[in-house]
Amino acid sequence: MPPEVPGTRRDCELLDRSDPLAAYRELFSLEPGTIYLDGNSLGAMPRSAVTRVAEMLSTEWGHGAVRSWNSAGWLDASRRLGDKVGRLIGARPGEVVVCDSTSVNLFKLLVAALRYQAGRSRSVLLTHDGNFPTDLYVADEVVRVAGGSAAVRRVPPQDLAGSMGPDVAVLLVTHVDYRTGYMHDLAGLTAAAHAQGALALWDLCHSAGAVPVDLGAAGADLAVGCTYKFLNGGPGAPAYLYAASRLQAELSSPIAGWFGHASTFSFEDSYEAAPGVERFLAGTPPIVSLAALEAALDLWQGVDIEAVRGKSMALAALVVGRADDRLAPHGVRVFSPREAAQRGSQVSLGHPSAYQLTRALAERGVVCDFRPPDILRVGLTPLYTGFVDVWDAMEIVEEVLEQRSYEDERFGVRLRVP
Amino acid sequence: MPPEVPGTRRDCELLDRSDPLAAYRELFSLEPGTIYLDGNSLGAMPRSAVTRVAEMLSTEWGHGAVRSWNSAGWLDASRRLGDKVGRLIGARPGEVVVCDSTSVNLFKLLVAALRYQAGRSRSVLLTHDGNFPTDLYVADEVVRVAGGSAAVRRVPPQDLAGSMGPDVAVLLVTHVDYRTGYMHDLAGLTAAAHAQGALALWDLCHSAGAVPVDLGAAGADLAVGCTYKFLNGGPGAPAYLYAASRLQAELSSPIAGWFGHASTFSFEDSYEAAPGVERFLAGTPPIVSLAALEAALDLWQGVDIEAVRGKSMALAALVVGRADDRLAPHGVRVFSPREAAQRGSQVSLGHPSAYQLTRALAERGVVCDFRPPDILRVGLTPLYTGFVDVWDAMEIVEEVLEQRSYEDERFGVRLRVP
Repeated sequence: MPPEVPGTRRDCELLDRSDPLAAYRELFSLEPGTIYLDGNSLGAMPRSAVTRVAEMLSTEWGHGAVRSWNSAGWLDASRRLGDKVGRLIGARPGEVVVCDSTSVNLFKLLVAALRYQAGRSRSVLLTHDGNFPTDLYVADEVVRVAGGSAAVRRVPPQDLAGSMGPDVAVLLVTHVDYRTGYMHDLAGLTAAAHAQGALALWDLCHSAGAVPVDLGAAGADLAVGCTYKFLNGGPGAPAYLYAASRLQAELSSPIAGWFGHASTFSFEDSYEAAPGVERFLAGTPPIVSLAALEAALDLWQGVDIEAVRGKSMALAALVVGRADDRLAPHGVRVFSPREAAQRGSQVSLGHPSAYQLTRALAERGVVCDFRPPDILRVGLTPLYTGFVDVWDAMEIVEEVLEQRSYEDERFGVRLRVP
Repeated sequence: MPPEVPGTRRDCELLDRSDPLAAYRELFSLEPGTIYLDGNSLGAMPRSAVTRVAEMLSTEWGHGAVRSWNSAGWLDASRRLGDKVGRLIGARPGEVVVCDSTSVNLFKLLVAALRYQAGRSRSVLLTHDGNFPTDLYVADEVVRVAGGSAAVRRVPPQDLAGSMGPDVAVLLVTHVDYRTGYMHDLAGLTAAAHAQGALALWDLCHSAGAVPVDLGAAGADLAVGCTYKFLNGGPGAPAYLYAASRLQAELSSPIAGWFGHASTFSFEDSYEAAPGVERFLAGTPPIVSLAALEAALDLWQGVDIEAVRGKSMALAALVVGRADDRLAPHGVRVFSPREAAQRGSQVSLGHPSAYQLTRALAERGVVCDFRPPDILRVGLTPLYTGFVDVWDAMEIVEEVLEQRSYEDERFGVRLRVP
């Protein structure tokens, strides 16, 4: 049953009051006077990140210094945080590490997947048009590095399942599309890949913390994702990498750094990969950023992701309802799928002057973002976004459109991509 | 003229009082009762890192949130910090970026170097025995990735200049050896590489902030280094990567992430490398860690690296002198080169029970570290280490050796590599 859409601001107040997630809002730092609808780009800061990082700096680095690699658990951080992410994406302990960036982790896993499949005469990376740019760039470069018959095959998203030929080594899909918010069928596409002998690699950047994800139940092979969107780990917080236990021993990373060695501090001359997922670590991880991220992940302990999803869908229904009722006459269209089950935790709105509109909204304290060519993204982050926030934001969008204040000369009336 | 070695603790006090770098010590957090001689592993924390990171969290992330990518200069951070590192290693603006880890950066540059040389029938990575493990691991894996005739040639360090055959694509040398402290001739080996048509790639992990480095004057081609040792950037702080301006347009990174794109936020489907050194960026950099690092780099502004080097050599002479006079009878030998010009900013001491000795010293508040099989490293960091520190530390080493307290059963009397 689709959620009932509140028809008044008063309805929204009541929904916020009865919201089982309401208490989380106070755990975040939100600028007064701002409605933050861009947590799908950068999550808001958990207040605990400030105290956690201060403690890490003063006590662990400032006093413990090098000894803190052992005494403060820095050495285990990639694995410890990995397991905390793992609980949110249906991974078992020992299947996830936090390290590097999504781009670097994707590079490592794509090369590992091609190597794994090399003996099986499979050398195609199958992915979809409109995938997140860095995924496409990395994939293109991986086949250049791999040489031989390696190739990228890009197809329309809806053609993925039908394009799984006998030459496909690995399917690379971003679970929730960054522009449209479209959510792929993780279990279904994984099964389709397996049925044809391909591995399935999922980019979960817009999924973890936004929608329920169960890699284990889907039998997914590999995954990457960032931690700075719905997980609230901080700008550029280290990313994560998932490799199913059953595959780990047969996978090897092309970037053989000392943290991926079976015995980092033996300083041996030759490389022996660590037995588990740690073999995908490379260099020393950035501990200060990891401290902020760990505070954010700890906040997720005890959060009911189904409650998050329920509220996300209700917030999205409000956006869609208001867009249809009040914004459509001003040329706004709903660009995301209308079916909640096909949508992550964002609603994308199309408008010819979306860029200027985004700027004008920022001036009015509504933070959302623009994606080329004409998309305004409304990110919905149920831990700290309420119904009144969304109601008020949509009112402001309508005002700006009515007053045509987005045509303010400061921003130019022509569509201008930055 | 070699520095005069102080003969008494009183001499050391006088040297500390007249030390032109003395004022820097107060800028660091040092645990009371501890003598920290491990800044070559993890530099001490600049107090300014605490305030800088707190500001970054509360104001930039906590209030500005996603807008801070522009308003707080996060987008430019890799380049801005790169230029700050560049001033310490003789690079020009636009030749250095701060990003990823040393291992990942080395991977990118080695692949780029092999590609650059591919048309010239050069495919050998020439490096030396005893190079830092991660450098060897990365090099071995790069040739596996590159395939074809790519190979690693490892020779004794003293044979590097004579091993520069016509098949050598790139010379990979760690400027200051992590175990011995031996410092290679950066200008001389670079010239030898160039004379034979090879590129020179320098690992500066133990050099930047420790000894004067002038990549520009040497005509060096490529370099990598970490920022968490002598630069005091914090545990796992992002590393840096140098590519000489003249080569940048001909080099390409194998990890084509969106931050290395000429126009990151145009979200184009195909990759176009950024025109400058930014083409070696991959994913989103960890901003919280970069904030701590920037505070550390700002502290280096105005530091006279020649003064640092002078004090470093004087501190080293004290270690060597005391080791010869007082520790040799207990089986300690000086493992580092005795010639100051051939040594970075550490003195390595050999002892059959170096591991236990290191542990026993830690119990007594002297922090240095152990490297297999039998090396105790004494790191000298002139910004915050004084002559009295070193004098007292050497007294404690002597006491521990005299009392044989390193044979304490808690640590085991047998040499045990962790």
